[in-house]
Amino acid sequence: MMATSGKDACGLNGEEPSVSLTSNNDKSLVNGATTEASALSKRQNGGGTGAERFAFSPEPTIEDIRRMQAQFTDERDWNQFHQPRNLLLAMVGEVGEVSELFQWRGEVAEGLPDWTEAEREHLAQELSDVLIYLVELAEKCRVDLPQAVLRKMALNRLKYPANKVHGSAKKYTEYKD
Amino acid sequence: MMATSGKDACGLNGEEPSVSLTSNNDKSLVNGATTEASALSKRQNGGGTGAERFAFSPEPTIEDIRRMQAQFTDERDWNQFHQPRNLLLAMVGEVGEVSELFQWRGEVAEGLPDWTEAEREHLAQELSDVLIYLVELAEKCRVDLPQAVLRKMALNRLKYPANKVHGSAKKYTEYKD
Repeated sequence: MMATSGKDACGLNGEEPSVSLTSNNDKSLVNGATTEASALSKRQNGGGTGAERFAFSPEPTIEDIRRMQAQFTDERDWNQFHQPRNLLLAMVGEVGEVSELFQWRGEVAEGLPDWTEAEREHLAQELSDVLIYLVELAEKCRVDLPQAVLRKMALNRLKYPANKVHGSAKKYTEYKD
Repeated sequence: MMATSGKDACGLNGEEPSVSLTSNNDKSLVNGATTEASALSKRQNGGGTGAERFAFSPEPTIEDIRRMQAQFTDERDWNQFHQPRNLLLAMVGEVGEVSELFQWRGEVAEGLPDWTEAEREHLAQELSDVLIYLVELAEKCRVDLPQAVLRKMALNRLKYPANKVHGSAKKYTEYKD
């Protein structure tokens, strides 16, 4: 069941969510993953009960981000620059900035155990930039991004039935019935 | 004020949100933007009251998407393939697929007035793929993406004061005090 009044029920009706520098689950795993992160990461993210698994804060929602970014753009009279293709190129640029942070390294383990706090925060900023432009691009294309993701995930479950693809990295076109 | 119990209050405590093919505001502007979209788009998205502006559905949240994708990956024993650099490359691939939809076209207007319904749905799917991999990349890097976006938006407001940059596309390093 979807709570259609979820946004209001969450007390986010036009208010800007406050910035929290700590995680919602009070563990030092948000950006500040330290030595314990690498030890925990396999157990947490490698499958399992999920009880202690890393999680995001519930807010802001994608719609909150859309609304805040729209206000930011409006206030600066920047809609004249924010056509779909410009926003796409802006997003591509930000994906490039994320890529720079991972280039010339060897394999990077889950939880980024060898990264400094400054590197983690830099990554958090670049990932955020990708999301902000992705959200604004979807808005300007009139794509209801949260609902589109639900449809795509339903499609992915059909394309990749768990019992058929377990442990395999093949593309769905490579499977034979 | 942030409602820290927002997720539970939204009735999404572990339940999977249902897929809705219509918008949360009952207007035909979600993927199905038709002729009215181009007429409305300037008024809606070009700045203004915002009363009729296009909006996303409030759900699923970014955390809902993280949880659903983590379950999808767990069920298929795919965490062995989903290291940060692999997820980054997967996201880059999906950004490429979005780019393909916009290449060899002239400027594309807000609301995509000339696009077919099939093209819109294809775009919705590719934008979704970018978001899904972005969310999983952030998870595997222990970045609390929703909170990181709030921090980045606060930084952007500092870098680009509305009264200083109004109507200008300069980068923040190009402004003189």
